[in-house]
Formats: sequence, C-alpha cells, structure tokens
Amino acid sequence: MGDFFSNRRTIRKYASEPVDNTLLIELLEKACRASTTGNMQLYSIIITKEESMKKELAPFHFNQKMVTEAPVVLTFCADFNRFNSWCRQREAEPGYDNFLSFFTAAIDALLVAQTFCVAAEAEGLGICYLGTATYNAGKIIKALDIPRGVVPVTTITAGWPAEYPEQVDRLPLKAVIHNEKYTDYTAGDINCYYSEKEKRADTNMFIKENKKETLAQVFTDVRYKKADNEYFSGEFLKVLKEQGFMGQ
Amino acid sequence: MGDFFSNRRTIRKYASEPVDNTLLIELLEKACRASTTGNMQLYSIIITKEESMKKELAPFHFNQKMVTEAPVVLTFCADFNRFNSWCRQREAEPGYDNFLSFFTAAIDALLVAQTFCVAAEAEGLGICYLGTATYNAGKIIKALDIPRGVVPVTTITAGWPAEYPEQVDRLPLKAVIHNEKYTDYTAGDINCYYSEKEKRADTNMFIKENKKETLAQVFTDVRYKKADNEYFSGEFLKVLKEQGFMGQ
Repeated sequence: MGDFFSNRRTIRKYASEPVDNTLLIELLEKACRASTTGNMQLYSIIITKEESMKKELAPFHFNQKMVTEAPVVLTFCADFNRFNSWCRQREAEPGYDNFLSFFTAAIDALLVAQTFCVAAEAEGLGICYLGTATYNAGKIIKALDIPRGVVPVTTITAGWPAEYPEQVDRLPLKAVIHNEKYTDYTAGDINCYYSEKEKRADTNMFIKENKKETLAQVFTDVRYKKADNEYFSGEFLKVLKEQGFMGQ
Repeated sequence: MGDFFSNRRTIRKYASEPVDNTLLIELLEKACRASTTGNMQLYSIIITKEESMKKELAPFHFNQKMVTEAPVVLTFCADFNRFNSWCRQREAEPGYDNFLSFFTAAIDALLVAQTFCVAAEAEGLGICYLGTATYNAGKIIKALDIPRGVVPVTTITAGWPAEYPEQVDRLPLKAVIHNEKYTDYTAGDINCYYSEKEKRADTNMFIKENKKETLAQVFTDVRYKKADNEYFSGEFLKVLKEQGFMGQ
C-alpha cells in the first residue's frame, strides 16, 4: 500500500485495450462507499465510452487528447436533482436551491471521484483529472442532457497505462501543513519551499519554452491567466444560477 | 484491497491511544501525491492536536464530540495565499481573486483530504468528515489565524477506532450512474431506488424518533433545513468575498 500511494503518476496515454465493464462497476461500487453528507449521496457519475460522445465532449476540454483516446471518461456531478425528486414524492419540501447545498453536493461528488481514482490506480489503471469540467460546465450540461439541480464538477479519463512518465515534483510537506494555527509564509519560507522546484532542469526548460523569466510567470501569463479565470468564473456562476443553486 | 474499500465505515468513537506522528506525516505525504491542478498544490492542512485548540474549534462544529475526542483533527483549506506570495516574489502578477480559482483550490484540497482518508483507513485508522467546516468557515478562519486567500472546505477527525458500527446503506449503483447521457428519474425510478432504504428498520425508527411521516421529511424539516441552508450560504459567500475570491 505504501508504494502504491507514493508512486502514483497521472497517466495521459492509454492502451487501446478497453476497461472491462465488470471492473468498472466494481470500482464505481467502491467509490460510492466514500463518505457522503448525511448519506444523501448528492452526486451522479456520467460514463462516456462511445466515440461520438467523446468527440462531442472533447472541445469542452480544450481538445486534450485524453478525452478521445481514453477508453472511459467519467463526468462527476454535484446532484440535488435525484434527492429533490425523492423529497417531492415523499411530501417533503426541499430547501436546497442555494450555494451551500451546491458546495455540499460538490464535496460529495469530489470524494467519490477521488475514491474512484485511488481504487482504479490500486488495480493498475491510470487516471487523469480534467479541470476543464468547471470551465465549460454549461456546454457539458447541454451535451449530456443534464437537468436543473445538477452541475459537473470534475471529469476524469481512465484506462490501462501506455506510458510510465517521470513522477512530478511536490513541495516539501512542511510547505503545506500547519501545526495548530496557520503560520503565514515569510519571503524566506517561500524561497526555501520553492527552491527545489525552481532548480529542476525540466522547470527551466519549461520557462524557456514559454519565453518567460520565472516559473510563476508561466502560470500567471500563460497557463492560468487572470482574464481567463475571470471569464470562466462568470460562466460557472451563471451555470450555478441556471441549475438552481443561487436562490430564486 | 477489495474488502478494504467495500467494508469501510465512518468512525466517530476513537481509542485514547494517540496517532503516532511518524504515521501521520507518512499519511500526509501520501495524500499530497493526489492529483493537483497544474501541480500548483492549492491547499493547506491545519493539524489540531492540542486540547485547547480542539475545545476552541468544537462549537464551530456544533460540538460534535469527535472534535474533542479524536486525537487528530485536520482542517483542509483551499489555499491561494502561498501560491500568490510565490508569484509576487517572482515578478508575476497573480489573477486568482475570483470564484473559479476558489473552486479549483477547493477541488485540490478535497482530493488531498479524501486521499488522506483512504490511506488512513488502509492503515486501520478511522475517520469522520465534518461538513460543518463550510457552515462556520469564518469562525474557523479567526480561530486558526487563517489569512486572506485561504478558505477551510472540510474538516476530518481521525484516530484508532473504538467502535465497529454497522455499515450504512447506499443507493443501488444504478441510481447514481448514467450511461452516455443523464437519464432523468421517473417517479417509478425514485420509488425503486429508494425502496431498500425506506424499508430498513433503522430508517423507520429514525422517522419515529424525529416525529415525521417520511424519511425525506427528516432531511428537509430537521437535519438540513431551508432556512439554515440559506443562512449558511450567505455566511459562506461572505467568507469567499472576505478571503478575496469574489473579485475586488
């Protein structure tokens, strides 16, 4: 178990071999044992295997090739629709058309997603998260016939690995943990915690490729730009409203 | 592995035996190998072990006894503060004062939290999620000296189990998965998927204890009420604004 958690890599290239349906169902069953708020199970998982559907989803994930190449694409959704339907059929008036309820359902969906990933990796499968699910949630909703009360929060691709990439770096653990209280970072802490990352050969190649002076600039000016973040924030908040999570 | 995922139970009673610090660090190291957006690691984990701090946090978690009784309480936070500090020290202007960035960091934090839980359970530890972290995020922020750019998204308690509760039910898997497109639930689907849960003896005892007619009413009228959800939605959105995630 130790090695299994510690040696993981995100896998973006998959063998053409399909993921057996029995295994997929078994992994999904395991995932659904994850903790869930009040045992409400406020999530749905949409399984994409058909070529045509993968092609339809691909542009919403900025055509990252994993979407069309992976045998399985899973879209994890925060889902109050099923729970609300049940309430209404049982003489109960749901009060979940608000932001807290969305966030609660999102937590449920993300715990299931991550449990699926760990269970899948334990079987030797490879996975990749696509953050783009929130960027284009509105378009995914249309493509997958997602009703009001449901919002995609993340997408993962899964399959048998056809690559064994080098493991990416992480900050030293002490950079992300705090004992008893949050200790804010001094300039010296930042230099110390980021120094390993900044010394790496691949980091320096990456900075050059992107024609920037620092790695941080590659993030702020190329990969995760303010204007994009603001545009997609507006879009995602619009989706939350349309899906019934921001009040009347 | 199969049994391990499938047999899990949430644990709310812990032995007085502490969790060895070496083990805790090992589990946190494993957790931090979870997928993270662009390898930005947009999270912080605040470790609470001191009695006095547990007592201070307890009321924010509605005095659920796990908070003071568990040897370890972990508060997982969406954290752009560290990343922004790094950017500013490296001539890069961060553009992460928006909702999408908060949600991205929240995903990062939740994947780490759930990986910690799976790794902890694999070692025989028991965990319990406290949804109350979002309800009282503002108060937790003050108690733990959490700076702008950081928002608690979930709290877990962990320790060696001192109970072996019956496993709670789950909806049948087919209730939460959709093939290729979302198929909305008919009244018949709802009756079918919820029938096992509604037939259970513990469910019926729970309805009686709460003096309600249906299980759904226990949720809407007692456990997760509209007025509470709306109040805490307002509070949580206020926290996102105060912590710098809703624009200027």
